[in-house]
Amino acid sequence: MKKDKVKVTFLPEGEVVWIEKGATLLDAARKGGIYVNSICGGDGICGKCKVIVREGEVITRPTTLLKREEIKKGYVLACQAKVTQDVVVEVPPESRVEGKILIDKDAQRFRALYAPLKEQVFFRHYPLVQKLYLELPPPSLQDNVCDHLRLYRGIRRKIEVPIMQTGLKVIRSLPYIVREYNWKVTATLGIRGGTVEVIQVEGGDTSDRNFAVAVDVGTSTVVAHLVNLNTFETIDAEATYNSQMIYGEEVTRRIIYAELKGEHKLREAIVDDINNLITTLISRNNIKLNDIMAVLCAGNTAMMHFLLELNPSQIRKEPYVPVCTCPPPVRAAEVGIRINPRGLLYSLPSIASWVGADITAGVLATGIYQAEELTMLIDIGTNGEIVVGSKEWMVCCSASAGPAFEGSGVRSGMRAAEGAIEKVKISEEGRVHYTTIGGVKPRGICGSGLIDVMAELLKAGFIDRAGRLNPNLDKRVKVREGEVEFVLVPSSQTATGEDIVITQADIENILRAKAAIFAGINVLMRILNLDFQDIKRIYLAGGFGNYLDKENAIILGLIPDIERERIQFVGNTSILGAKMALLSKDALDTAYYISKNITYYDLITYPGYMDEFMSAKFLPHTDTSLFPSLKNLLKEAV
Amino acid sequence: MKKDKVKVTFLPEGEVVWIEKGATLLDAARKGGIYVNSICGGDGICGKCKVIVREGEVITRPTTLLKREEIKKGYVLACQAKVTQDVVVEVPPESRVEGKILIDKDAQRFRALYAPLKEQVFFRHYPLVQKLYLELPPPSLQDNVCDHLRLYRGIRRKIEVPIMQTGLKVIRSLPYIVREYNWKVTATLGIRGGTVEVIQVEGGDTSDRNFAVAVDVGTSTVVAHLVNLNTFETIDAEATYNSQMIYGEEVTRRIIYAELKGEHKLREAIVDDINNLITTLISRNNIKLNDIMAVLCAGNTAMMHFLLELNPSQIRKEPYVPVCTCPPPVRAAEVGIRINPRGLLYSLPSIASWVGADITAGVLATGIYQAEELTMLIDIGTNGEIVVGSKEWMVCCSASAGPAFEGSGVRSGMRAAEGAIEKVKISEEGRVHYTTIGGVKPRGICGSGLIDVMAELLKAGFIDRAGRLNPNLDKRVKVREGEVEFVLVPSSQTATGEDIVITQADIENILRAKAAIFAGINVLMRILNLDFQDIKRIYLAGGFGNYLDKENAIILGLIPDIERERIQFVGNTSILGAKMALLSKDALDTAYYISKNITYYDLITYPGYMDEFMSAKFLPHTDTSLFPSLKNLLKEAV
Repeated sequence: MKKDKVKVTFLPEGEVVWIEKGATLLDAARKGGIYVNSICGGDGICGKCKVIVREGEVITRPTTLLKREEIKKGYVLACQAKVTQDVVVEVPPESRVEGKILIDKDAQRFRALYAPLKEQVFFRHYPLVQKLYLELPPPSLQDNVCDHLRLYRGIRRKIEVPIMQTGLKVIRSLPYIVREYNWKVTATLGIRGGTVEVIQVEGGDTSDRNFAVAVDVGTSTVVAHLVNLNTFETIDAEATYNSQMIYGEEVTRRIIYAELKGEHKLREAIVDDINNLITTLISRNNIKLNDIMAVLCAGNTAMMHFLLELNPSQIRKEPYVPVCTCPPPVRAAEVGIRINPRGLLYSLPSIASWVGADITAGVLATGIYQAEELTMLIDIGTNGEIVVGSKEWMVCCSASAGPAFEGSGVRSGMRAAEGAIEKVKISEEGRVHYTTIGGVKPRGICGSGLIDVMAELLKAGFIDRAGRLNPNLDKRVKVREGEVEFVLVPSSQTATGEDIVITQADIENILRAKAAIFAGINVLMRILNLDFQDIKRIYLAGGFGNYLDKENAIILGLIPDIERERIQFVGNTSILGAKMALLSKDALDTAYYISKNITYYDLITYPGYMDEFMSAKFLPHTDTSLFPSLKNLLKEAV
Repeated sequence: MKKDKVKVTFLPEGEVVWIEKGATLLDAARKGGIYVNSICGGDGICGKCKVIVREGEVITRPTTLLKREEIKKGYVLACQAKVTQDVVVEVPPESRVEGKILIDKDAQRFRALYAPLKEQVFFRHYPLVQKLYLELPPPSLQDNVCDHLRLYRGIRRKIEVPIMQTGLKVIRSLPYIVREYNWKVTATLGIRGGTVEVIQVEGGDTSDRNFAVAVDVGTSTVVAHLVNLNTFETIDAEATYNSQMIYGEEVTRRIIYAELKGEHKLREAIVDDINNLITTLISRNNIKLNDIMAVLCAGNTAMMHFLLELNPSQIRKEPYVPVCTCPPPVRAAEVGIRINPRGLLYSLPSIASWVGADITAGVLATGIYQAEELTMLIDIGTNGEIVVGSKEWMVCCSASAGPAFEGSGVRSGMRAAEGAIEKVKISEEGRVHYTTIGGVKPRGICGSGLIDVMAELLKAGFIDRAGRLNPNLDKRVKVREGEVEFVLVPSSQTATGEDIVITQADIENILRAKAAIFAGINVLMRILNLDFQDIKRIYLAGGFGNYLDKENAIILGLIPDIERERIQFVGNTSILGAKMALLSKDALDTAYYISKNITYYDLITYPGYMDEFMSAKFLPHTDTSLFPSLKNLLKEAV
């Protein structure tokens, strides 16, 4: 028994957390490292942090975010429940962020996504960090240049380096190493801005041990690929949830949290995630931490700010000015990333406050910057970023879609992880067919599943073009607590024991999300005076999964109606671009070129954006002439 | 009373030091910061660390380094005297390194030496650290480039900077500073290798506060000049003794000490000296530590190693390979130098293990690298370094002269400080006329005085061309304890109460020193196939004082016999070159050019060096044809 503290036991793990009286259950969960969903970051408005009090009592306030039956069962919102005595609390499956094992499978999925773009963009193999094995001539009276210049001379005999730099620590170590190893040493060189830094000098030939990690710092998922810098090979991949989620699911919530509690908390959270990923990757592949010489990160602008502990405040305030879109390479240890103590952390450059380094990576990976024909990249996450252009010019914008396609703000929504329904078909007889990730019992619906559901419900006539569910059509359309919902999978067949449903509110959320993105696309078309048919290729990127149904995405009105073979789903281009930059200085230079040469267009400044948004809230759109190929289909729908 | 420790009281200060039983008096003096001369660094072979035991007893061994009368008075060698009980010890004037006030006057002398070379070498004013006041346009929706690039844009609108770098700390501070000061900021830019670093960004206009310190890190004296980087002006100068002297007066002794006890002790000692100099300079001139943005150091190669804590061991071992002759600029704080925490420490490049950055500075200051005619620089310190060349080519060597010209190894020798006899004339009647630095009672003889003494004794016939004192010629030639000596100033007229003398051993020391240097000069002439008359200009540098008598230096045979107006005494060119490099990037670049383009010739590899040395041990030389202008004078001498 600890003074002034109470004991909170979290089920099913049985994890015990001691916390001050008056703290909330969400505080206790954060302290204990127990993941509990939270979109609003603890403001009691998202209703995602539901937990069940099994023993003891908590102090809480009335809320409309819990159903009456839930309250009866002991459900409370963790962020609103204050503990004053010892309690036992259960975190139900729907409030849990999924754990390790599922992620491993995800990682393999992310890895597979590398394939489709592999041959489109090619850069010279010129890794950001190189190891050179040198057999230096021992000094003599005739050749007694200093150790430092002898090393430089040896390096310059192998490669061309205009400006070379070295820290005092490396110079200090030189006389010992070169003599102990009889002038046979391995120099590690890192690209740093326009210069090359001799990062370390090791005795003997260690040139075959030269690894790096590319990281996609997503708002919800952090993906890391372990790369052999010598062979170009991706050795392994791993992913985890961004543990900043406990400070808010949305970027803006996290920025506000940083403003209130300090940026360092956000940095520490993401750095912990990255360190954990690296640890997993190296131990699984028998690689030493000391042989990881670089980490390269790509993420949205806010994530990059959090990682480097830059004040993110102005990102959310007009005129939306980041502190730094092109962060210089720094010693990884400076931000707390644990690799070789002299290893470097590279950051891909961002484009603007709301178009980040992940999009730079996407443009790099898809090669838009060198495309002969007009190309569009649509990257769908919590924001939908759109890039249009070719080698002549590039324009981008960001549409605030909300996290619906990532499964948030949707009753049965979940991320693209095991148990997620990722494919849905409603047969002519009205029967729902679905497949889940991992082939297990369904736990919810992920983004690609939601797109299918919307299109299938329209085709089957369960909803009209405004998205309205018809409550009298079928027994699967129910009214529960005043809200209309369609039961996709009854509770008897789910892993959670609850119905997997899509509610009228969910449908409106999804329509709002897709309308935001499509309006962004349409505004770009208008300001550029372009027609959809001018777009010769569309790349669709994002964490949906592998099986996005292009046809259904068009029926939903998420993407323009162009010839299907011109549309390519490319998966996670952020990690792909990050890896390309790690493996080629030319790719990194190209990333800088991209970030400087994309014109950012702020949708807010377009007077007709709201009208565009409203028009796009239909299936597929108010203006059906934009979707000519759906003519026959739409005849059937009302 | 402390356990196992005994009390050593040093007179005249009365400073009390507690030390372990069995330690030496020199240990105690070091511990208490009491300066006691020591050339050998504590090996009991130089006899310079004489102290007088006034109370108590010490354990010591017999030594021939003390005169019988000294032993009777209680003199002991501090390095050989072990303490086992409380003692009171007096440090007599001859064993004291002079203190603060004298140094101030020295500093003014060093400062004056800037004048003669001022107009010979001119570089564009381009300080290594610049401050730019910027009024940045506040961001808007139309111009919302990040803070970092906005700053870079502002800088690049003022000056051309191909590669600009910035540390994470500065980037992190940016959003706060630019907004607090309404986008009016001062950026401090430091040259770093081939790049420019934004060292700091301050609010408002601080561009007028931009100072730096140039330091000549001499083996015995450390000289610092405070410089205004905006106006080119030398504000003040200060000097102190290199407190590494407690680890040995000679460079080699200090290297051995570093090998035994660690390099950090040597670094700490010199860094303390530099910090003390800076503190004195800034408080005397009401300048803030934060406004000192850079320190630039020049010294011999070993001193540069000590400063940066580089292992100096190989400097003294064949094939004499330094760790680093061109150290990169580093954060001054990294070695412990206290200026602005982000300020830089620059090191002038050295040439070889025994030709250091002080010589690079000398070549820079005298402009040999761009001379149309063949020029020679002779820099006389503990080593004599010789550079011969022009804009076409340059060759240098180092002759191990020993510290005789710095007043060490000579009975009445002392450094060029107050009370030193710096000018001597023996009249036709044989009367000794002298002047002292500061015009006070004499305490000893400094280098320029010793040169005069040698030449005057020869001219007056007290010594022959082999340097032998004739004991029967004059009552001032005495035999004391088996050694012949000439009394220059009787004890009644000196500040120390002891005779100021020159002994037969002193004369041999001086002859050895000058012979080493002249042999070096002559070897260079031979390998380059040159004649003295080919040398169109000789610059003589070193810490002699302002009044070196060229004629007497030639009579001594220290420097070649060429037309007197072609010989110029230039004083401390190390500090002068250091200042030039601080004030002009072009000068620093030239220093790098110099260090790369001087060929180092190792005298040891010349088979005839020893013969050259033996021949040069005469006054002026065995081969009098080398000194044609002295023909008449030498007729008189035997």
